[in-house]
Amino acid sequence: MRVTISRKAHFNAAHRLHNEHWSEEKNNKIFGKCNNPHYHGHNYDLVVSVTGDIDPDTGYVMDAKILKDLIKAEVEEALDHKNLNLEVPEFKSLNPTAEYIAVVIWNKLKPHLDASHDLSVTLYETPRNYVTYNG
Amino acid sequence: MRVTISRKAHFNAAHRLHNEHWSEEKNNKIFGKCNNPHYHGHNYDLVVSVTGDIDPDTGYVMDAKILKDLIKAEVEEALDHKNLNLEVPEFKSLNPTAEYIAVVIWNKLKPHLDASHDLSVTLYETPRNYVTYNG
Amino acid sequence: MRVTISRKAHFNAAHRLHNEHWSEEKNNKIFGKCNNPHYHGHNYDLVVSVTGDIDPDTGYVMDAKILKDLIKAEVEEALDHKNLNLEVPEFKSLNPTAEYIAVVIWNKLKPHLDASHDLSVTLYETPRNYVTYNG
Amino acid sequence: MRVTISRKAHFNAAHRLHNEHWSEEKNNKIFGKCNNPHYHGHNYDLVVSVTGDIDPDTGYVMDAKILKDLIKAEVEEALDHKNLNLEVPEFKSLNPTAEYIAVVIWNKLKPHLDASHDLSVTLYETPRNYVTYNG
Amino acid sequence: MRVTISRKAHFNAAHRLHNEHWSEEKNNKIFGKCNNPHYHGHNYDLVVSVTGDIDPDTGYVMDAKILKDLIKAEVEEALDHKNLNLEVPEFKSLNPTAEYIAVVIWNKLKPHLDASHDLSVTLYETPRNYVTYNG
Amino acid sequence: MRVTISRKAHFNAAHRLHNEHWSEEKNNKIFGKCNNPHYHGHNYDLVVSVTGDIDPDTGYVMDAKILKDLIKAEVEEALDHKNLNLEVPEFKSLNPTAEYIAVVIWNKLKPHLDASHDLSVTLYETPRNYVTYNG
Repeated sequence: MRVTISRKAHFNAAHRLHNEHWSEEKNNKIFGKCNNPHYHGHNYDLVVSVTGDIDPDTGYVMDAKILKDLIKAEVEEALDHKNLNLEVPEFKSLNPTAEYIAVVIWNKLKPHLDASHDLSVTLYETPRNYVTYNG
Repeated sequence: MRVTISRKAHFNAAHRLHNEHWSEEKNNKIFGKCNNPHYHGHNYDLVVSVTGDIDPDTGYVMDAKILKDLIKAEVEEALDHKNLNLEVPEFKSLNPTAEYIAVVIWNKLKPHLDASHDLSVTLYETPRNYVTYNG
Repeated sequence: MRVTISRKAHFNAAHRLHNEHWSEEKNNKIFGKCNNPHYHGHNYDLVVSVTGDIDPDTGYVMDAKILKDLIKAEVEEALDHKNLNLEVPEFKSLNPTAEYIAVVIWNKLKPHLDASHDLSVTLYETPRNYVTYNG
Repeated sequence: MRVTISRKAHFNAAHRLHNEHWSEEKNNKIFGKCNNPHYHGHNYDLVVSVTGDIDPDTGYVMDAKILKDLIKAEVEEALDHKNLNLEVPEFKSLNPTAEYIAVVIWNKLKPHLDASHDLSVTLYETPRNYVTYNG
Repeated sequence: MRVTISRKAHFNAAHRLHNEHWSEEKNNKIFGKCNNPHYHGHNYDLVVSVTGDIDPDTGYVMDAKILKDLIKAEVEEALDHKNLNLEVPEFKSLNPTAEYIAVVIWNKLKPHLDASHDLSVTLYETPRNYVTYNG
Repeated sequence: MRVTISRKAHFNAAHRLHNEHWSEEKNNKIFGKCNNPHYHGHNYDLVVSVTGDIDPDTGYVMDAKILKDLIKAEVEEALDHKNLNLEVPEFKSLNPTAEYIAVVIWNKLKPHLDASHDLSVTLYETPRNYVTYNG
């Protein structure tokens, strides 16, 4: 009996979309208002989904409290109330688009999970725009 | 790194469920209040999901603004504030159920996407009833 | 101890905004796509709020089941899956805007409540547009 | 044209997480406040998804009204306003975690569906914790 | 400049509606499934709203973190994962309807607020049924 | 027949809470992570509510399209994808707390409304924290 458990979390952060190899004009054309050099920000909503077998002793795939604490330690501590471009090492050389933020979060969480578990990360940049990365 | 990006949109429309090859009695029995000859309507909420590789230059699978504009041009212009049965050619000979509306929307969008991209369409007829079509 | 109890409900309907004393041109200018002669429609979400004293025997201001049944009998039966312009007598001579639909619902419900109870009606035409009428 | 239709439902229930083969101390350590012997409870939100071919006569994969009635008869009647541990036979020897409740619901619904239909059950224990079981 | 700040919180609890002065028959008639002697439960969502003047030094009516901690200490500690009838002293002689739970929460919070602040408590028993108490 | 119409909107922005008359230590103590000198950000959700009499010719208190355009011109153009501290003149000498942002929005909108209309502004800084200002 393989079941997926999902946990919602959120964090707030500032960011700017920018490609340092491009001219200012091209950055403006491609990223528009998201290229604002003074940054803008989002309430990012996050859904972390872990798929695995039910442990018959607990009835859990994984204790939701452990998953909540893992998200807090690995994701919220690193990203919440941060300027992603300036304060998060992974985005020193990576554009902090929703796509890459989801990949970074997936990479932060995966090593802490049981090897038999599958991981999926969904990140809402706004309630109407979101991305999903399954590794 | 294959990622799915999703964009929500919505439109309002009137429709009537009806099979012209059936008697009025059978239409009433199968479609109930949805067969009302004077039409009823919905706020349709739409989620369009596109799966592809991240472009390393932009950090995008696809620019969400382009996807938003595509949905506006191909779906909202065709369906918003319309009577689906009377004003939308695809439903001249197709019952405008949520299932078929999702298929029609998928067919409208797919030709405009990169051939390497997968498309999924989820359509909410009400907040409690929705359908998903992946092609 | 005066408390307000609220109950959510919903109905789907078709409508058209139109002023019969105006030219087609003026109707188009003022009501835009909402003037479509073939109708369009909405999922209307409704919140009915009743304020009164707590009955110490039950702990209720009013039994939520009775309020639910009242909304069903007086509002949903009259409006759900209907064409408001063609099938609802109140809108024969009244434009079915969200404002007037809220007033009509308030008038339908008020006579069935205890005279000591206050009534408020909130009607969502879409998740982003709504109106409130308190009598 | 294989389409998934989804229907949301909900029920309220009391439960307690407990492993009768463990000491009180271990139950407390593993299940925390969820082990409260006086029970606690939830508004469980349920999404039932059925995947199949569109019937060209109706335009439906399955009549949403039939799915709604099936969920009511098989799930809501059995679980709504119940104490899962004391009143639901399946949980006499099964811990009523979200994972196992989803499995029980899947098993209740599957025999009533067309053999060609796939079934997925998503159960929200809270708005931030949910599980999915696909059989 | 008088502004209202609102903070959402939630707790899960079991309860039973019952009037000990009534016969079992009358309790069943009035409270229906909510009278189940084995209890049922809810995810209660809570909105606490405090109205006051903006402090020009902070720009806050009240620090949202302090309000969050106050709700946690006074409401969540007392009610979360509890059986309201058996474990919460206020409901020893008070029926734990949504109305009375809102009044109890208001009474728990008011003494901890600045005397110049107004307090409003909204309690959702389900997403479709909620109550508001303003003192 | 005095009715309130409400329109939802949203904008994304970066900000930092800071009192320039305080020491770094005191700013840290009072504003915590919100004092991050590199800024953080939010998806601000906005509800603008206008109360007035129904115009019998249109059935509107105010055309929702006009209200939408007014919010776009006066609020979204000024605040969306901006750094509130650095780019919005009103916050040069005002701390951009949710409270003061709501007051600023109210002041931007009020002069554009009919004098007989009442205005209320609700601003969500996160889905769980919001403020309301009625002038």
